Amino acid sequence: MTRPASVLNETLTADAALRARAARVVPGGMWGHLNAARLPEGYPQFFASAQGCRIRDVDGREYIDFMCSWGPVLLGHRHPEIEAAAQAQAALGDCFNGPGEVMVDLAEDLVAMVPHADWAMFQKNGGDATTACVTIARAGTTRRKVLVARGSYHGALPWCSPSLIGVTSEDRAHLVHFDYNDVASLQAAVTDAGNDLAAILVTAFRHDMGRDLELPTVEFAQAARAACDAAGAALIIDEVRAGLRLDLGGSWEALGVRPDLAAWSKAIANGHALAAVTGNDRFRDAATKVFVTGSFWCGTVAMAAARATLRIARETGVPAHLHAMGLRLRDGLAALADQHGVAIRQSGPPQMPLVLFDDDLDVRKGRAFCSAALRHGAFFHPQHNMFLSAAHGPADIDEALEAAAQGFRAVRELR
Amino acid sequence: MTRPASVLNETLTADAALRARAARVVPGGMWGHLNAARLPEGYPQFFASAQGCRIRDVDGREYIDFMCSWGPVLLGHRHPEIEAAAQAQAALGDCFNGPGEVMVDLAEDLVAMVPHADWAMFQKNGGDATTACVTIARAGTTRRKVLVARGSYHGALPWCSPSLIGVTSEDRAHLVHFDYNDVASLQAAVTDAGNDLAAILVTAFRHDMGRDLELPTVEFAQAARAACDAAGAALIIDEVRAGLRLDLGGSWEALGVRPDLAAWSKAIANGHALAAVTGNDRFRDAATKVFVTGSFWCGTVAMAAARATLRIARETGVPAHLHAMGLRLRDGLAALADQHGVAIRQSGPPQMPLVLFDDDLDVRKGRAFCSAALRHGAFFHPQHNMFLSAAHGPADIDEALEAAAQGFRAVRELR
Repeated sequence: MTRPASVLNETLTADAALRARAARVVPGGMWGHLNAARLPEGYPQFFASAQGCRIRDVDGREYIDFMCSWGPVLLGHRHPEIEAAAQAQAALGDCFNGPGEVMVDLAEDLVAMVPHADWAMFQKNGGDATTACVTIARAGTTRRKVLVARGSYHGALPWCSPSLIGVTSEDRAHLVHFDYNDVASLQAAVTDAGNDLAAILVTAFRHDMGRDLELPTVEFAQAARAACDAAGAALIIDEVRAGLRLDLGGSWEALGVRPDLAAWSKAIANGHALAAVTGNDRFRDAATKVFVTGSFWCGTVAMAAARATLRIARETGVPAHLHAMGLRLRDGLAALADQHGVAIRQSGPPQMPLVLFDDDLDVRKGRAFCSAALRHGAFFHPQHNMFLSAAHGPADIDEALEAAAQGFRAVRELR
Repeated sequence: MTRPASVLNETLTADAALRARAARVVPGGMWGHLNAARLPEGYPQFFASAQGCRIRDVDGREYIDFMCSWGPVLLGHRHPEIEAAAQAQAALGDCFNGPGEVMVDLAEDLVAMVPHADWAMFQKNGGDATTACVTIARAGTTRRKVLVARGSYHGALPWCSPSLIGVTSEDRAHLVHFDYNDVASLQAAVTDAGNDLAAILVTAFRHDMGRDLELPTVEFAQAARAACDAAGAALIIDEVRAGLRLDLGGSWEALGVRPDLAAWSKAIANGHALAAVTGNDRFRDAATKVFVTGSFWCGTVAMAAARATLRIARETGVPAHLHAMGLRLRDGLAALADQHGVAIRQSGPPQMPLVLFDDDLDVRKGRAFCSAALRHGAFFHPQHNMFLSAAHGPADIDEALEAAAQGFRAVRELR
């Protein structure tokens, strides 16, 4: 028996109404990684507002946010100092016939903060930055082969998209694959590339969707550096997802390994659209010669936001705070899982945690956990690494753990 | 004899000081099309503020702006209604874990305004949109060949960049070239693509740097449409540069030819970073299946700005105003050229004019004209099409013509 339309209308949420409208005018209702169709039951597709570590959906439900807009929100939503910097710049203008002084200031900030960086350039998407790194590496070496780890995400352009739909085999003609953290497979790929090795492109850590996160081993990082040095190729670290959360100088600083080029985006302007490439002097000429550009790439407002973001991140020691809050979350989740007799695996750096359930190939447990936690006010993700922000304090973590307790209860009640 | 450093320092402009700083931390001092190195003498690299049709450089010199940030500024810099809409959205938040209601509103606005559009998707760069169109066309046809006009600009990604530095031949493996407005060459390219024709990608009009602009002929537009219909391929119009200035429904509406897919960017949010793909129902499934995404693609602030831009553009009939102001400029320049005995060629739609000088292969005349006009307060470009905005009124045009008179005088005084 179908319910009469009047009843449906009365119970229709704002989110459901927007999904219905979107289904008519947006293919599939939403594109790419922001499509909520694959998220657990109850997850909203549409959001109305955000403040600090709290987000509010279009039905007025508020959640403690552990996705941080899939990474960009580093210091909390609508951080007052960052928004003030952005508005002060907007009052002068955003997009001109050329850059503003803020572009030079920001490049100087990055060069001062990132040890490997002798220069910086700016873009809008993470994929703009990874693509520019590859182009610069090829220009600088006059070679073609780029080594990438199987399953690593470097953007959604045809050369790197996780999907092959609409992509030609030529788009990936010169990629050579290896396995992350597997030195032997890296060296085999280097051999395979022969004297045509332009670059090794590697994410800051292994953060492939749906599998345990892995930090790079020192051996792996050093082998990548050594291979590039031996071949005169570029070591490119894709910092798009991890950048600024692990180490403000670059995610591999603790390993003692520095790249020639790095791609940054997401967190560098706390949610304002910006990306950057940093590079060393070996690749300065190449970066000068390539033609990479975009209509909005020197928009001053996002750069002003980035300067404020970097300054606050430096002054407040953001990675350490995120680490502490991530550990608090991790320890709390471990205790709760134990208490409920549910086996979980927590992986990755505490600043970007992933929680997976044992014996959960179909993600049934993960989805039940997330659905229940969501109903109790915590926005987790069942398969993708999550993100802490500087706006998460101990009380927020503890409140989220109460929601997580409901999640573990739901998992225990499965079957 | 070299001047002592003290004198140099005294005369150093803020622009020169910034160029010196930028040379240290930005490859080549600036990237891509915004690098002022190739502009005539006296052109600033760095800008401080803008309002309406006036821009101000970092040395406080003000110009009537005929570049409009290379296209994005459609209604004038810092348009109060657009900035109010952007700020109202920013007060709620910009970048969330999913889209805001404004994404649906904006998609509905575009579907209502653009006759070929049954749906819309959003990105950040014009190149994101052209790349998505090609990917969608390939996905929808399961073919590979894309026909593009020789010399047309579709972005700076490896598959379409005007530079081959750092680009591999495979990046362009499935492009087939034809000559814009040349039906026979188009048909030869179609034959060449055979049963592998995915799309014809064509700019709204021919706007290749340094050569006279050309509007598409009806015959050419109809031939492109017919070839796509016969082959089941996608006709893609690249509206990135021309979009909203010629016809709000699409630049080929007057020709009676509609595309299957169109790429928009630059002007659609009056300077806020946004791009869009519009498409018809033939390509809805393909657009649903491809994986295209970006961290900031559903940022709500740029979308709120776009809604305001489209509304004002509709309500005030922006293309007609730009046309009238462009004609006033064109007529004035023609009269001045005649008066000074200097032969010029004016081409393209009046909304996006180009002025070239006869017998000027080295652009010596064009540069002398622009340098002198710049000193008298008008920011023209010697080789790239320019852009009118709704903020240009008759008095601004007349004032710019006085600066142009100084430009013609400078040309006459050459040799």
